[in-house]
This record gives sequence, C-alpha cells and structure tokens, in this order.
Amino acid sequence: MTQVTGRRVVVLAGGYGGAKLSHGVALAAAAREAEEADPLALTVIVNTGDDLELHGLAVSPDLDTVMYTLAGLANAETGWGVRDETWSTSQMLEHYGAETWFGLGDRDMATHVRRTELLRSGLTLTQATAELAERLGAPAHLLPMSNDEVRTQIRTADGWLEFQDYFVRRGQQDTVLEIRRRGIEQARPSAEVLAAIEGAELIVIAPSNPFVSVGTILAVPGLLDALLAAPAPVVAVSPVVGGAALRGPADRMLESLGGTASATGVVAHYRERYPGLVDTFVLDQLDIAEVPALEASGVSVDVLPTVMRSHDDRRVLAGAILANHLPD
Amino acid sequence: MTQVTGRRVVVLAGGYGGAKLSHGVALAAAAREAEEADPLALTVIVNTGDDLELHGLAVSPDLDTVMYTLAGLANAETGWGVRDETWSTSQMLEHYGAETWFGLGDRDMATHVRRTELLRSGLTLTQATAELAERLGAPAHLLPMSNDEVRTQIRTADGWLEFQDYFVRRGQQDTVLEIRRRGIEQARPSAEVLAAIEGAELIVIAPSNPFVSVGTILAVPGLLDALLAAPAPVVAVSPVVGGAALRGPADRMLESLGGTASATGVVAHYRERYPGLVDTFVLDQLDIAEVPALEASGVSVDVLPTVMRSHDDRRVLAGAILANHLPD
Repeated sequence: MTQVTGRRVVVLAGGYGGAKLSHGVALAAAAREAEEADPLALTVIVNTGDDLELHGLAVSPDLDTVMYTLAGLANAETGWGVRDETWSTSQMLEHYGAETWFGLGDRDMATHVRRTELLRSGLTLTQATAELAERLGAPAHLLPMSNDEVRTQIRTADGWLEFQDYFVRRGQQDTVLEIRRRGIEQARPSAEVLAAIEGAELIVIAPSNPFVSVGTILAVPGLLDALLAAPAPVVAVSPVVGGAALRGPADRMLESLGGTASATGVVAHYRERYPGLVDTFVLDQLDIAEVPALEASGVSVDVLPTVMRSHDDRRVLAGAILANHLPD
Repeated sequence: MTQVTGRRVVVLAGGYGGAKLSHGVALAAAAREAEEADPLALTVIVNTGDDLELHGLAVSPDLDTVMYTLAGLANAETGWGVRDETWSTSQMLEHYGAETWFGLGDRDMATHVRRTELLRSGLTLTQATAELAERLGAPAHLLPMSNDEVRTQIRTADGWLEFQDYFVRRGQQDTVLEIRRRGIEQARPSAEVLAAIEGAELIVIAPSNPFVSVGTILAVPGLLDALLAAPAPVVAVSPVVGGAALRGPADRMLESLGGTASATGVVAHYRERYPGLVDTFVLDQLDIAEVPALEASGVSVDVLPTVMRSHDDRRVLAGAILANHLPD
C-alpha cells in the first residue's frame, strides 16, 4: 500500500459507484502529495453480500471492482472486470458444461483462483484481500465488511433469489419486494473494520446502492453502532440524480420498497432507517431544487457535481468532500 | 464417448507418447468403422503420479495430454496444453506473486478449475475424468490408474524432488538416482481399471517413460497382478529409438538407473522388472540390428515405424499393432 500514515479517510462502498468515489479520494490524495499537503490514508470498507462461489472459486464482485479501479486495471466500458481481458477459460468452461452466465474473464479468473487458494490456506478474507490489493498496487486499505459469509437474497414475484441470480442472471428485471441477508446475524465486522471506523477522521458513504450495498454493510451487527460512536463526520453521496440511479436498480428499489426515487428519497431512507448516522448529504447540482425543502427540515446538504464520467470528475468530487469535511 | 461397445483395447499411457499412440488407436478405430469392420472400444489407463496441486487446483498433466490429444485440442507444437491458447490468467497470477513455472494456459486452466470443482463436490478422479473427457468428445474411456493420490518423487544429487519440480521447473537436467512414489502403498487400482484390464482383448504399453509413466502405473499394488492374470496379449512399444528417447529423459534414466539407453535396454528393463508381462515388443525400424539378438534370447519382436510425426503415423502404427495382435 502506498499510504500507511496520513489523514484517515474511510469510504463505505459497493461496486461501481463506490469504486469510482474511492478512486477519486486516491487521486485527490496523490494531488495533495504533489502539493506537499499532508497525505491521506484511505480505507475502503466494501460490501461482501454480493459474493458468490463460481466453479468452486470464491468471487467477491464488489471488492474486485474497487480493487481493479484503484489499481488502474478496471474495465471502463463494462464497469466490472479487468481491462484488456480475454475469455478463453470461460469458453472452455462452457465446453465442460459449466454455467457461465456470470462473466469471468481470464485475468479476473486469476483473482478468484488466488483468493480461493489464500482462503483455503487459512487466511481470512481480510488478509487475502490485503494480499491481492497490495500485489496489484491499489493505493488504499481494502477491507471486506466482515470475514464472515453474508449472502444477500432478493424476494421477487418468483420467490427468493440469490443476489447475483437477481442482479446478473436475470438482469435486475424483477421488482424487488424484500431483501434479506443469509448469515448476517452471525456476522461481525472485522477488527480492522472497527479500528478503521474508530480512527477515521472522515467517513464517506459512497454513491452505492443504499439497500444492497451500503445497507448490507450497515446490517453487519455492530457496524452501525461503531459508525454512530465514531467521532468522524459522516458524509453520504446520493446515488440517485435527477430521479434515476446512475447505474443499477437503486431507483426502482427505492420505489418498490416504500420510498421515493429521488435524492430526497435517498436522504429520507438514510434518515429514517439510520437516525443520526449521516451528518451531511451530497446531492448533485441537477437536484438543487430539492435542497431548500431538505434544509428546511434540518438536513445539511452539499451540492456538488456527483456524476463521475472522467477521472477528473472523480478527483474533483472527492476533493470537494475532503475540503468541506476533513477537519483541519 | 463415441465408442461404448466393440473390440476392447487397453492402452497404458503417460503423457506425450501415450497420447499419440492412444490417438492412433482412436484413428484406427475410426478407419475400421469407415470400412464397416467391428468397432473398437478404447480404454486408456493413465499415469497420475505426475499430478500436482497448483494455485489450489488439481492438475493431472498426463490425463490432460491424453484427453486433449484424443479430443483434437492438443497443442502440437509444445506437446502439452491446449491449442489456440491464451495466457492471461497466468500473467495475472504472476502479478499476485504466485509461482508460474508450470505453464497453465487459460483454456487449460478451465480443465483444472472444473476438475477441482468436481472433485470437491465428491466425485472420484475417475468420475471427474470421465465427465471432462466426455464433454470434450474424447473418443475413449480415460481412466486414471487410481483414485488414490500418488506422487512420484525423484532423487537427485540435490536430494528428493517432487516430480514436476524435477521435470518442469528444473527441466530434467538432474541425473535421476532413484524414484519413489508417495502414497503408492495405500493406492489401489480403481474398479474400472481392473475391469478394463480383465476384459481387454489387447493391452498396449505405450512408448511412454518406462520408469515414471508406465513404471508408476505398474507400481499401483494389484495392477501388475491384474495385467499378468489378464487373458489379453500385452504389447509394449519402445520409447527409445536409435539409442535416444524421442522425448523426455527415459534414455538418461535407463543409464543412471542401471540399464542401457537402447531399445534392447527397454526390453531388458521390462523383462527383468516385470517377468511375464510383455508378450511382444515393438521396436522401430531404426533398431532392426538389435532384433536378432533379442529373438535369439526368446523375445518376440515386431519391427514397425514407431516415430509418430503425423496423425497418419499414429494411425499406421496403431493399425499395425491391432492387425498383428488383436485376436480375430
């Protein structure tokens, strides 16, 4: 890891949005160093409720998206997987009659092979993740939310589905009626997660899905309490802009689970479900019309350009959050 | 499998030479069918003493060489692995600090991933091999010599080495002083192997290494006895032609382990070590000068073109062995 000391920033992240904002913080950190400002020590706490076993291998889609993005290896076109990818293993697995609806490229496959080997050798997921991320040169501490297995499941009109069955195989087409997380009662945040939260100077909730990404992290028993007890300010970036999720089904989930598909709906979700957790919400400029009503109801709001199309966008958004909220 | 009934031919095989002769039998079988002769049911009993675990995956190099060759997927240039191969997984594994001295291409990787998954799900190696070979359309029954783990080890001036450490990592440069096989005492031939030997109408020992390939198969307790008790004639093809092994270290092993690097040395090895096992030896035309002395000492010899450069060579050699020795 390139940063071991510095101002301690913690990001709670799912996959795509969490990866981009985390990368923004890493880019902002590099910019600070170039200006000889105090360095940042970035820790990303990542949802593992989307994890699954494929071909006997341990696959952690959100951890990998964050890791590849931070290491500069992400596939910018797909938003998942590794760039310059080949697909030979997957094609051959298909010859063998294996199910290949979850796309695993050859470079990506190495991650799952290696992770599985490390886990089987006795490492925790936290240790295995640290080893992989360090080898790829990801400029952050990557922490799975827990070493314990948690599996998000989605209730649809067809009954309960495993998360990736809903998300990838069925393409998020089903209306989400309910969410549950197998193993969550027994899961605990790792010691590293608790230490990162306790020692943080700023905690950022990435523009990830509030239900299946951030919601799963917050559902790990003890993790929300740790966040509520942490001295650091908590800033949450809305994943809904202009009434629609930038990616994925967050907007439809807000509606089908009893809320509103809007930035205000995201704010309401966090405030009702996790009272006292978020100190400041970051909304996009596109949603500026929603700000007065929110502020009138006592919500602290920053309006920033939150749509991260370029690396510059990532750095600018993260830099603004740091400038506004990282205590001097 | 394309053949389930027919004249029952069993081949004992290591990797490259065993794969080519087995393929020859399969090609001869196809030619017989085209001529509406009675079909052949080919069973290949394969050495698994060269197996190893890499990246937590179960790798069976000889089984795979035979399977890929029979399925028409072999890499003709290297003699191992799959044709039209890519190397992305291996390159990425190297980034992760994994040892990649044993070349695993991306298509090949699928075989190990799938085999490992099948074994972990509770299948025997025999069952997993049948599943893989059938999916690839290999026109033969492929049988590992045993479902039990056996690991060949090589004593060199530097001490005992695991087989692939000697063979691949150190490139067969060490003089072989002794061979042993971890797990061999507890290993047993599978029921399928014993049934194939008992029911065979012709048994062919491929031109594979007499020590580490055929020798390891014959070292599985009970397997040699089954061969000696089998009613079928046993024909052995010399892997040494013109005083040199066509591939690999068989010639040097013959010398360092107390024999002679010649076709006659191969014959002597089999006759001394396994009395009564081989009924007929197949020598190459290049070694015709050695035949009179062998025949004078009571050895039955066929002289045939044994160097298999082309698919035609494979078919012609196998066809001649079948014509000479498969009972009417």
